[in-house]
Amino acid sequence: MTLKFKTIGLVGKQNGNSVVEAILKLGEHLASKGLHVLLDEDNASMMSDHNMEMTSIQDLGSRCDLVITVGGDGTLLNAARSLANSQTPLVGVNLGHLGFLTDVSPVSMLECIDEILAGEFQEEDRSLLSCRVTRDNQTVNESIALNDVVVHKWNVSRMVVLEMYIDDKFVSQNRSDGLIISTPTGSTAYALSSGGPIIHPALNVIAVVPVCPHTMSYRPIVVSGDSQITIVVSDAHQDSIRVTCDGQIPFQVTPGDRIHIEKNKQSVRLLHPAQHDHYDMLRAKLFWAEPPKRKT
Amino acid sequence: MTLKFKTIGLVGKQNGNSVVEAILKLGEHLASKGLHVLLDEDNASMMSDHNMEMTSIQDLGSRCDLVITVGGDGTLLNAARSLANSQTPLVGVNLGHLGFLTDVSPVSMLECIDEILAGEFQEEDRSLLSCRVTRDNQTVNESIALNDVVVHKWNVSRMVVLEMYIDDKFVSQNRSDGLIISTPTGSTAYALSSGGPIIHPALNVIAVVPVCPHTMSYRPIVVSGDSQITIVVSDAHQDSIRVTCDGQIPFQVTPGDRIHIEKNKQSVRLLHPAQHDHYDMLRAKLFWAEPPKRKT
Amino acid sequence: MTLKFKTIGLVGKQNGNSVVEAILKLGEHLASKGLHVLLDEDNASMMSDHNMEMTSIQDLGSRCDLVITVGGDGTLLNAARSLANSQTPLVGVNLGHLGFLTDVSPVSMLECIDEILAGEFQEEDRSLLSCRVTRDNQTVNESIALNDVVVHKWNVSRMVVLEMYIDDKFVSQNRSDGLIISTPTGSTAYALSSGGPIIHPALNVIAVVPVCPHTMSYRPIVVSGDSQITIVVSDAHQDSIRVTCDGQIPFQVTPGDRIHIEKNKQSVRLLHPAQHDHYDMLRAKLFWAEPPKRKT
Amino acid sequence: MTLKFKTIGLVGKQNGNSVVEAILKLGEHLASKGLHVLLDEDNASMMSDHNMEMTSIQDLGSRCDLVITVGGDGTLLNAARSLANSQTPLVGVNLGHLGFLTDVSPVSMLECIDEILAGEFQEEDRSLLSCRVTRDNQTVNESIALNDVVVHKWNVSRMVVLEMYIDDKFVSQNRSDGLIISTPTGSTAYALSSGGPIIHPALNVIAVVPVCPHTMSYRPIVVSGDSQITIVVSDAHQDSIRVTCDGQIPFQVTPGDRIHIEKNKQSVRLLHPAQHDHYDMLRAKLFWAEPPKRKT
Repeated sequence: MTLKFKTIGLVGKQNGNSVVEAILKLGEHLASKGLHVLLDEDNASMMSDHNMEMTSIQDLGSRCDLVITVGGDGTLLNAARSLANSQTPLVGVNLGHLGFLTDVSPVSMLECIDEILAGEFQEEDRSLLSCRVTRDNQTVNESIALNDVVVHKWNVSRMVVLEMYIDDKFVSQNRSDGLIISTPTGSTAYALSSGGPIIHPALNVIAVVPVCPHTMSYRPIVVSGDSQITIVVSDAHQDSIRVTCDGQIPFQVTPGDRIHIEKNKQSVRLLHPAQHDHYDMLRAKLFWAEPPKRKT
Repeated sequence: MTLKFKTIGLVGKQNGNSVVEAILKLGEHLASKGLHVLLDEDNASMMSDHNMEMTSIQDLGSRCDLVITVGGDGTLLNAARSLANSQTPLVGVNLGHLGFLTDVSPVSMLECIDEILAGEFQEEDRSLLSCRVTRDNQTVNESIALNDVVVHKWNVSRMVVLEMYIDDKFVSQNRSDGLIISTPTGSTAYALSSGGPIIHPALNVIAVVPVCPHTMSYRPIVVSGDSQITIVVSDAHQDSIRVTCDGQIPFQVTPGDRIHIEKNKQSVRLLHPAQHDHYDMLRAKLFWAEPPKRKT
Repeated sequence: MTLKFKTIGLVGKQNGNSVVEAILKLGEHLASKGLHVLLDEDNASMMSDHNMEMTSIQDLGSRCDLVITVGGDGTLLNAARSLANSQTPLVGVNLGHLGFLTDVSPVSMLECIDEILAGEFQEEDRSLLSCRVTRDNQTVNESIALNDVVVHKWNVSRMVVLEMYIDDKFVSQNRSDGLIISTPTGSTAYALSSGGPIIHPALNVIAVVPVCPHTMSYRPIVVSGDSQITIVVSDAHQDSIRVTCDGQIPFQVTPGDRIHIEKNKQSVRLLHPAQHDHYDMLRAKLFWAEPPKRKT
Repeated sequence: MTLKFKTIGLVGKQNGNSVVEAILKLGEHLASKGLHVLLDEDNASMMSDHNMEMTSIQDLGSRCDLVITVGGDGTLLNAARSLANSQTPLVGVNLGHLGFLTDVSPVSMLECIDEILAGEFQEEDRSLLSCRVTRDNQTVNESIALNDVVVHKWNVSRMVVLEMYIDDKFVSQNRSDGLIISTPTGSTAYALSSGGPIIHPALNVIAVVPVCPHTMSYRPIVVSGDSQITIVVSDAHQDSIRVTCDGQIPFQVTPGDRIHIEKNKQSVRLLHPAQHDHYDMLRAKLFWAEPPKRKT
């Protein structure tokens, strides 16, 4: 049997308790099959006794045929953004709890990975958002997001006022705690807590979900994934608004800044075990009732 | 100037107060331009003194180049379903209030219609749903919907249990007052009252919105417009569940019935005045704040 | 030890599988302690081999010092309404699942009941609603509810229009699927599925929760338990509106009918095991996270 | 006619455009009736040409029989907190828009005030919350709120974890953007944007409304106004949680801090014009439909 992937990258959650053990186990297993294993150098401080080659996450992207993340959804989100340009496929091992993105359980990790190496897997393209902030027509910040770009108040207790334009048409000017611009992937993350719908991950759409809007009819909206969304920060909010991608790195915007959000050119290639079922996962994560016993 | 449309159909709201006046005015105006005008025969009882040819709504579909509805969104919904196979474009005159679908106001009706006749308009394809109920593998009911197919309790005060499958995969079995399967067009109708998102009308998606679900994490979901959705009526609900398209014609289902919902082959061609703006309409209908005064 | 209760009534769920077994076990246990046991005669058809005295539920109310219901929350709701005038205390054995009202589990049933007989219990007063429908100033229907009075559409797919007055002041006229007028007890029932708040059962308040309101700012409201609420059925809804108490017995209203809802003079005396904790129950029923491990 | 109030305080919105004009007009009018007028000294910078005595807001509280605020709801909120101990009644003039609290319009301001001076008014007691933060059993912050105490994330994009106890019983530990502890008065403010119910202002209750909770069944709860609510800040949130009263003055809490919230001993005496109707105000503010034309 020829294996589909030759060079495998490993990326672990920072400060995770059981991560080291799982990475060592995976590393040995992969090496024993003659595969070349590269370890994210950011895991160096937590690992000592191993003989995997360590390198930067960017280098992992350019050299690996597959990257395995070990941790939770947050670890995969981080890796996905770093690897976005390389188009390296990703698979996520969760430690403990099933994730929305990480569906390889530690119990069956080696069998699952073997199946994936043997070509038995499902592959999904997950769209990313690119976010660019301009100030006086100069780009002052660029970032990407797999879940969501959130434009939100901070350092202020009052609501903030944000204007939104879609494809250069004025949509709304509203008081709220912020706006979540979400991919389908992000629809089960922060957007869900704010009242957004659950969106099938394969759809080419973007959701805009207001956080605690002052006007109650200002509801989540779903637009084409090819839309260009612009959020304008009004003059009144000196020092009180930030933009954050995937809840991880905030950027502070100032009055007059324009936040441009659109689908990123590259998407993320996400692999699942062959028996993966999207709705099984939703039921498990959201405590929905299980199927009826009778045959249907 | 050559006019784009030669034969024009008129369909009025039943029992509408100001409908007769508007139809007569439109009929005269169109006739004075040398156009052939056909009137929906269902409007016969309310009209007397006119010389328009009257015919069935189906005949309107096969003979007309354009159908104008006079009334509200409900009148246009009715006409759209009747004309679905003919692909005749539709434009809606609202009487009094701006509608989500009917955006020609009575005040500027003749000017608007003249512009549309001159080819100055926006055209949208609005997807329809087809709904088919099977019982012991026989089709017992077929209908179509421009807004939504609603599977709902009636004649019972308790919640009902419905199973849902998407593309033959089990999704959920849940207690609720019902399920709304909605087009993007229907996303601003009943689905919005039940917590669904506002969906851009051009998207190829279907929304499934539970009505008062017992499980609070059972949220609105958005899936591909190419999905096949099946609702199975469980054994417990003798005589208590109905299926209704666009809130207009109910069909009673019985235990074991399967309700199959998918995108209809034909869509509706909806015309708008040239200056129509989707987000302007949403703001007006939903009382969202108006744009800021300054130039953006 | 003197027992606090001498004559005990038993009321079982109709058609419940494991109900007969539990009732026989309870009956024997209570008789063996020298207590007089009365069985609801509605349970006659499901029971054969026993020597308990059978009588009507009303008679249970006048003769018993305590009534034990065996089934689920629905069984207790039924019994509570029937016993409202008698002020006989009630305790609920649930079969299988913890209920919001029935917190004696079948596993520890006999021990729990013994404790309660020994006077170790918590007692709560749960308010009831009385509902009276008037037509041409004549009362045409009277009923009571422990959870909620629901004024709802049936036999119609469209929304209905209901006017509401509180203490004779006009509050609202709104299109919706209906209105739920709920006690604090009912706040975790249908009202919760419709977006209402969770209300502490001891509060003297009434909640009015609209079901799928057309106007999105038409939100649940909480008013004094001493309020008089009047719902007026407008002329447009011939044969399409019903009033239902606790989801159990519908009454059809006609245009012009007035539905008067206020707190019932008598409340329900609900007993709980001594260790009962309201918030423990909410966490268990609503899948909230459990307390942190550390001491607080 | 003897006037009910002899010494009148005036408090204006800071930086308000039309405030100065309204204050001067009020001051002259009151002086012309022989009343003693005191002006909040915080308004000094915006006022020049007047001969009213200026003094601190605290002094206004101890010397005035009535305080009139000129601005919006925020101005009245500020004044109400400052005057809480004095029990001086308050009436609010709104400039431009009807407020939830300020219902004297500038158009009929002088007539309204004259009526109130003549004793024709409605008086309401509005409960306040007192908020006390303890650290190592020492009180490190005390404040009061007329609308709400909000415990919220700041300077962090992720959700925060807060434990809540009511009357020393553990209620919940949940991830969210924060918790709003609201008076009935605050139920139409931030709590409403977060999904809370509208609570009648006279009720003796407190609402706890989670902001974007991770667990969807973690819903607004309504408890007795005599409850003691404690929020514990868990160890994980160094420097990322604040407590803010009425959205106005934030206090940063640190891990282990306990936030104690209960009803304040003093309440606010709020005066309304005699014809004030709570539900009229709700309909106007929330765009609910107006009453039917016919007599009811």
